[in-house]
Amino acid sequence: MTSQVAPVSLAVLQHRVRPELDRVSDELARIVRSDFPLIGDANAHLLQMRGKLFRPTLLLLAAQAVDRLDHRKVTLAATVELIHVATLVHDDSVDHSALRRGQPTINARFSHQIAVIMGDYLYSHAIIELVRLGDLDPLRVMSRVTNEMTVGEMRELDAHDVLDYPEESYDALIMAKTASLMSGACEVGAHDGDQGDRDALRRYGLHLGMAFQITDDLLDYTETESVTGKPTGLDLREHKITLPLILALPQMSPEERATVERLMSDLRPPDSLINTVIATVEARGGIAAARARAAEFAARAHVELQALPAGVAREALADCITYSIERRS
Amino acid sequence: MTSQVAPVSLAVLQHRVRPELDRVSDELARIVRSDFPLIGDANAHLLQMRGKLFRPTLLLLAAQAVDRLDHRKVTLAATVELIHVATLVHDDSVDHSALRRGQPTINARFSHQIAVIMGDYLYSHAIIELVRLGDLDPLRVMSRVTNEMTVGEMRELDAHDVLDYPEESYDALIMAKTASLMSGACEVGAHDGDQGDRDALRRYGLHLGMAFQITDDLLDYTETESVTGKPTGLDLREHKITLPLILALPQMSPEERATVERLMSDLRPPDSLINTVIATVEARGGIAAARARAAEFAARAHVELQALPAGVAREALADCITYSIERRS
Repeated sequence: MTSQVAPVSLAVLQHRVRPELDRVSDELARIVRSDFPLIGDANAHLLQMRGKLFRPTLLLLAAQAVDRLDHRKVTLAATVELIHVATLVHDDSVDHSALRRGQPTINARFSHQIAVIMGDYLYSHAIIELVRLGDLDPLRVMSRVTNEMTVGEMRELDAHDVLDYPEESYDALIMAKTASLMSGACEVGAHDGDQGDRDALRRYGLHLGMAFQITDDLLDYTETESVTGKPTGLDLREHKITLPLILALPQMSPEERATVERLMSDLRPPDSLINTVIATVEARGGIAAARARAAEFAARAHVELQALPAGVAREALADCITYSIERRS
Repeated sequence: MTSQVAPVSLAVLQHRVRPELDRVSDELARIVRSDFPLIGDANAHLLQMRGKLFRPTLLLLAAQAVDRLDHRKVTLAATVELIHVATLVHDDSVDHSALRRGQPTINARFSHQIAVIMGDYLYSHAIIELVRLGDLDPLRVMSRVTNEMTVGEMRELDAHDVLDYPEESYDALIMAKTASLMSGACEVGAHDGDQGDRDALRRYGLHLGMAFQITDDLLDYTETESVTGKPTGLDLREHKITLPLILALPQMSPEERATVERLMSDLRPPDSLINTVIATVEARGGIAAARARAAEFAARAHVELQALPAGVAREALADCITYSIERRS
């Protein structure tokens, strides 16, 4: 079920929960609505950016897999997306990113100030909505996950010492930054199913999230700007150390390592230097090795699904794994 | 009970809840603890800044006033302070402030990135802790209040058109930014008391908060750097429109208003211009009128206290009002 399979389109795997996903978009608009013009403008900008709703999809499919897909899951799915968007807004502000999904970020379109406040606005609305649902359980999961994501962000700020950045630190970083929310989405989706199914879906989401983020980091090494909507090599340009580089480094010659160090100590590394390091990472097997790690996590996610009742939702969750490691953007 | 009364010291009015306040500090340290070094460093910096714990004091006194001061109130008081600190950390980052309580802010001591992430870290820990207490009611109050504070922040960013900034907008701003959290602290403190007491304390906190913030804004016009720990006229320097200016403007001559406009359109207004406007605001009665507004809100807060059982806690809450409008820093 890994790289030998044809790419799965998100639209196809979302087909099973399409009506619910449309309602998630409506719920999102309802939850964030504000009469205050500045917030209304920022909301409008965020809503027209239209994310892929991958985390709500996971939540709804997890609910469907345990036969508990009710209207409350639609609202829960909207709060998960809201937490995701709040994180992206702060992330982009922290990273000074100008583009997201090919569109200006809140910090670029408005200001850093507005990005900081909007992130808080969106996150507090997610909490208000979870409280309104009247159940402490999803709140417990989502507040823990949000906190883990902030720790992941801190780990990311700290990930700059290229010759001393072990794979375990990378795993801890992407677990906190990405896998925790996907895991939380699956857990919350299954939260009034059996404890066994719920645990399986939590672990499924964790492995899926690891595979998803490794693939994301690979795209920075393999895809051109027209596909990702962002320049290839952006992570290297920003001195972010990701798995392909970590796995290639031990195979590099002293000269090649010196080149990597030169890039990392250059505040504005030239394109030629970035392209050289990308080529070296590929030549030293970093890309293939990172793909293999993503496939390992994907395989573990598949194992977790075996515990669930067979059916269309379980199949769609399996497709989510394939999508996570085969996607091109 | 207003300006004719001798200043009340915070230490004296905190005397009634001193043991609980000491435990609030311990709880704060416990809740934010992290093994990740960068977060540990930021925590250590924040904890040694030692706020005045005014909001926890209000919460504990409210609990004492309705005879429900138990150990859970200590944890609730810590979460209220945590939400306050999280807001200050983001606030300082948004405002690019370098000093807070005479010490470097997180954005100054570490970076803007770390300030954004730390604020999220602290806020999500407050939610985790509220969830752990297992009661949706304080969560409902605190998530609403946090959201109101973000709207207040947005209002503040928008408060720059000096000739078209009505007092109602200022009231809405300080209600959201300051009074909402003080009101929430009082409401949560009283939350397992009678509904009537709880409502009275919520309204008490709201009026107290309004008086508190008007007084804060007055200090910017009246106190010198050595007392507030920040330069006098900072709000004017940053083009923040507060009540003394709003109330003085209608009494100003066209020349005086032109001077105010000149300050507001000057990206780096010189000290002389700031001093001129401060003098004009005082001469046109803006400071006296703002003091009168603070006294009005203080009086309304006193009225709410009359509904509560008489006793030392109610007296201490009355002292909190006096402190709010008499303080010099």
